[in-house]
This record gives sequence, structure tokens and C-alpha cells, in this order.
Amino acid sequence: MPLEPASRFLRACYRLPVDATPVWFMRQAGRYMPEYRAIRANLSLLEIVERPQVAAEVTMQPVHALGVDAAILFSDILLPLVPLGLQLEFAKGEGPVIHNPVCTIEDVQRLRVLEPRSDLGHVLETITILRKELGEIPLIGFAGAPFTVAAYAIEGGASRDFLRTKTLMYGAPKTWHALMDKLAEALAAYLVAQVRAGAQAVQLFDSWVGTLSPQDYARFAQPYSSRVLKAAQTTSVPVIHFGTHTATLLRSMQQAGGTVIGLDWRVPLDEGWSILGPDIGVQGNLDPVALFAPLPELREQVQDILRRAGGRPGHIFNLGHGILQGTPVEHVKAAVEMVHELSRVSVGF
Amino acid sequence: MPLEPASRFLRACYRLPVDATPVWFMRQAGRYMPEYRAIRANLSLLEIVERPQVAAEVTMQPVHALGVDAAILFSDILLPLVPLGLQLEFAKGEGPVIHNPVCTIEDVQRLRVLEPRSDLGHVLETITILRKELGEIPLIGFAGAPFTVAAYAIEGGASRDFLRTKTLMYGAPKTWHALMDKLAEALAAYLVAQVRAGAQAVQLFDSWVGTLSPQDYARFAQPYSSRVLKAAQTTSVPVIHFGTHTATLLRSMQQAGGTVIGLDWRVPLDEGWSILGPDIGVQGNLDPVALFAPLPELREQVQDILRRAGGRPGHIFNLGHGILQGTPVEHVKAAVEMVHELSRVSVGF
Repeated sequence: MPLEPASRFLRACYRLPVDATPVWFMRQAGRYMPEYRAIRANLSLLEIVERPQVAAEVTMQPVHALGVDAAILFSDILLPLVPLGLQLEFAKGEGPVIHNPVCTIEDVQRLRVLEPRSDLGHVLETITILRKELGEIPLIGFAGAPFTVAAYAIEGGASRDFLRTKTLMYGAPKTWHALMDKLAEALAAYLVAQVRAGAQAVQLFDSWVGTLSPQDYARFAQPYSSRVLKAAQTTSVPVIHFGTHTATLLRSMQQAGGTVIGLDWRVPLDEGWSILGPDIGVQGNLDPVALFAPLPELREQVQDILRRAGGRPGHIFNLGHGILQGTPVEHVKAAVEMVHELSRVSVGF
Repeated sequence: MPLEPASRFLRACYRLPVDATPVWFMRQAGRYMPEYRAIRANLSLLEIVERPQVAAEVTMQPVHALGVDAAILFSDILLPLVPLGLQLEFAKGEGPVIHNPVCTIEDVQRLRVLEPRSDLGHVLETITILRKELGEIPLIGFAGAPFTVAAYAIEGGASRDFLRTKTLMYGAPKTWHALMDKLAEALAAYLVAQVRAGAQAVQLFDSWVGTLSPQDYARFAQPYSSRVLKAAQTTSVPVIHFGTHTATLLRSMQQAGGTVIGLDWRVPLDEGWSILGPDIGVQGNLDPVALFAPLPELREQVQDILRRAGGRPGHIFNLGHGILQGTPVEHVKAAVEMVHELSRVSVGF
């Protein structure tokens, strides 16, 4: 940290005192917002991401509409797979589909080396635009963690049991490790490039890692996450390390790296933080469905999380996973106000 | 426990010493077996369940083919919803679909009271047949836990985010509690009827409970699971209490009830057992995908679980969730042999 930052979000990343708990939401730009749907009426997700002005506009939408304390680059964790050679499509109502999933060692050998500036220059340009437009609001860049990205690349899309992924891990470990090696290199380079372009923090999304036992996490995922996180941490910006279903993985994730650990709602925030210890920040952890609840119930759940955080420096309020389609925008806005109001009172600034 | 039982499975349920660790698998009768597929070629799942001779035959298939230490009644956790008034169908490739899901308090009030002997007499008859045919092999009956059954009844099928379920919980708590009240009564009666018909143990499946935070589990699920488990435990047979993604719910599940707690693979067995304490048995917890692994890898994972169990009485070997479609039968059979062989050595009987 070169200078003590002014923004609540960055201060909390460094566990510095704040005037109110900072709050942002994973997937805070998206289909639940009418402004976003208006843009998506004419452009696909990938078309938005390829147009820096539009991607920047979409990134800004929740900043204007909600009053959140940080912006997160509008993009997708699977984007780096395209220049690596995978044919990615966001099929309607199906989520991402990869038409040539990775199966064999030859498929892995065929993957290109990522050169962020030439391959994903539009993402870096979006970051440059955003830094000018955002002013005091910090910008978060992000990437998927090697395990989660590998699982998409192998399954060819979403999965429930991760049968192909684990069958490859268990049955063809050399192919697995070769794939993870290439992905770790690409994702590390991508995160570092985002920081150089102006991202003031980055988040590593290991959304699917909770399908692994702690033993398998240590064998098959942790070394590669660690490589990406350590590379990101050399840039001096805060690094948030997030996954879901991670109650039994928290310590291993912390060992892998990160300035802040993201928790899902299955771990009470105080218990999660005490597993991690006091020397690290935590982000989370409202159930995304709570945003559909009547406001008094939502308020109780927000209050419960703040009470568990106990006003200790180092808490960033967020959901335990991304905002769901159909979430009422007014409730999201209300949640931001509740976090600020209730943390001002409870912290006593 | 009226008399000290002879079977490994029942002995382990009571934490008595065994000659080798007992093993059975959730969903051990099913599509991965050619014998089962032969029967399913002519009958739907519900048609099998309605025919006691056929249901008994399907229940016996894995006992003959695999050498497991217990049989589990071939049935489905959603079966009791049919006499309650819900229109259940197993659509091809889609899993269960309920055509008239529960939405309002009127829908809940309309639910019938379950009378197991008249409503589900075919299930009880299957149990009677099986007790004659199984000989020394104990028979496990089962039911879904109120939360998981309610979630199916509300969502109308499988779900990822449980949006309708939680929206009802948070937004219409009276409707939720009325539904859970009716389901707890029905499921308790159903389990008790299964024991009276001859089931020598029962398992309560709360497969989806891991979507709840511990706080929500305590408010919305635990009291009803507890009522069902306590009713089942009055029968004197062992009661296995199982869920997935339960790392942060284990103590609350134990408080709700059960003689044995089922663990999924995300909690290392020794850590799960130490959270629960020594006065309760544990069941689990191989990743179902490990059955697809090459045999040396499978053997290492089996060995790891037995090592974590440490030969202590009270461990029942199982998967952390049901057997997946496409699982190689030879590997399932090999896993049974590995458990017996390796536990004989490690326990030193």
C-alpha cells in the first residue's frame, strides 16, 4: 500500500478503520437492472465486452443506480479461454457453452499462450476508460481461478457433479496438471495486466471449488490458485479470494493467497473470520435470495452480518454469490443504504 | 436395542465393534446397473415402486451383485407427496416434476393427511417381502426430510438457487411453517410405518439442506427435522441423518436427532466426527466420482477414509451422495471389497 487510501472499500481491504462498512455486490451489473436489459436487447454479452465504451457504461450502471462503494469490471471469467483457442458461446437460457471442450493432452498442448495486451486489449481499454469516469470509486478487476476455469473448459459448460473434471483429475493427472499449469500462467498474466491498466483491486473467483474435498483441493487446485494469487499480490493492490461451498476449504484458500477472503452465506461471518484469524479481511456474506425478502427481513439479515463482523476493520459487505436474475432493484438499493446506516451506528464513527 | 445385533451394519449403527467396516451406497439400485435398466425398459420409476414384487427385486439387485452390508428400500423421497395431493411425474432426463407446486396457504391447507397403511401400502408390502428375502442383510427404510421435500413441493422440481423456497420462507413464514408442520407429520408417520413393517434402520435424506445458512436452518428446518427424527427414534431402530453441503450444519443436525450422521466428501471424516463428538456414529464419505477413478486411485481414497475413521466403532462406509449414472459396476464391487479388506487389516480383527 503506497499511500493510505481514501475510499471505504480500499481501506477495508487493508483493514483500516472506515466511516461505514463498504458494500458492493457480485454481478451488480446484470439482467436484474432495466438499464442493462436495454443494452442487452441489442448486444450479446460478448459483444458488450468487446466494446470498451459499452462495457464501461454497463460497469457504471450499478454505481449510479445503487450507490455501491466499488465498481467491478463488466466481463466474464471465461473470456480468457477465447484467445487460448476455445469456442465460447453464451447460449440463450443455458449459460456458457464451450464447443470444443478440453479432453486430451493434445487439447491442452494446442492451447495458446495468453498475451493480455494483444488478446484482451479491449478489456484493458475498458479499465482505462473506467478509471477516468469512476472518480473516487475504486475499480475491481477479476479473473476465474484455475480450477473453476478448467472445470468449464472440460465440462463444456455448467455442471452439477463435475464428472468429466474429476475423472480427468483422477484418471489423467498429467493432463490435468498440464492444463492447470497453462491456465495459471494465463490467469496470472491477465490479472497483472488488469492492475497495470488501472484496476485498484482484483478478485479471484473460484466459484465451483466447493465441489472438491479439502484433500483434492490441496492436490489439484491450491498450487495453481496460489501461483495466480501470488502474481496478483506482487502488484501491491488488494486481492480478494472468493469461492462458494468453501466452509472446509477456508484455511487452504487463505494459504493459497489473498488479502481478503470472500465467504458465502453457509458460514456465519464471525465463524468464518475466526477460522481465518484476525490478520486478513473478509467479504460477504448475504444469501442472494435475501434480496427478494420483505425489507424488514432483509434488514434483519443485513444487521446480523454486521453484528457478526462486530465493527472490526476489514469487513467488506457483499453477497455470498452473485445477484440473481429477477432481484428487485429497489431492494438492492435498500440493502446498500442499510449497510451504510447500520454500520455507521454499530461502528460508532 | 433389544438384543445385540449380528450384522455389521447394525452393529456399527450402535457403535459396537465389527469384524470389518460395513458398506452400502446411497442409490445403490439404479441406472448404472444393467439388471436395473432391464426392468426400467418396461416400467417407469413410479410403476416399479407401485409393484411390491418388482420393487423388492430391484432392492435386492445390488445386494446380489455387490456384496453390500445393507439393502435400502427402492423408492423415492417424493413418493409421500402423491397421496398428499401433489401430481408427481418423473420426466425423462429432467428428474422429478410436480405439476401443481405449493405456492399459497390455500395450497397447504388443501394437502391431505398421510395415512401410510392405506396411502402407501405398496411400500409397506415391499418391506414385508424384502424382510423374508434378505435373510441376514438388514433393510434400511427412508424418507426425505421436511426441508428437502418442501423445497421440491415449492420449486416443482430440482433447483439451483431455491428462490421460490426461500422467498416463501422469508416472505410468507406462516405458509412455510404450516407446510413444514404438515410434512413433518406425514414423514414421521411414514418412517414409523416403515419400521413397523420391518425396516431395521431408517435414513432421513435432507439432500438440499446445504443451501441454508445455519441461522436459517435453525429457524426454518431444524424443528421439523427434529420432530421426524424423534418420532423415528421412538421405534428403537437406528436412524441415519444425512445431508450434503452440511459442513456448517453438522452440530445443528445432530441436535435435531439421529443415531448416525451422514457426511459428504467436503468434510474430512475425522474432522466431521470430531465436530460431532464420540457419542454418535458417522456414515460416509467417498466422492461418488471416485468410483469412476482408476482402481489404484479409488483404493487410495477408500484407504484415506478408513484411516480417518481410525477403526473406531461407529463408522459405516458410504458415498457422500448417491451413485451417479454411468458409474462402472465393477468399480462399485471393487470398492466394497476394498472397504472390507482394508478395514479388516486396519482394525486388526
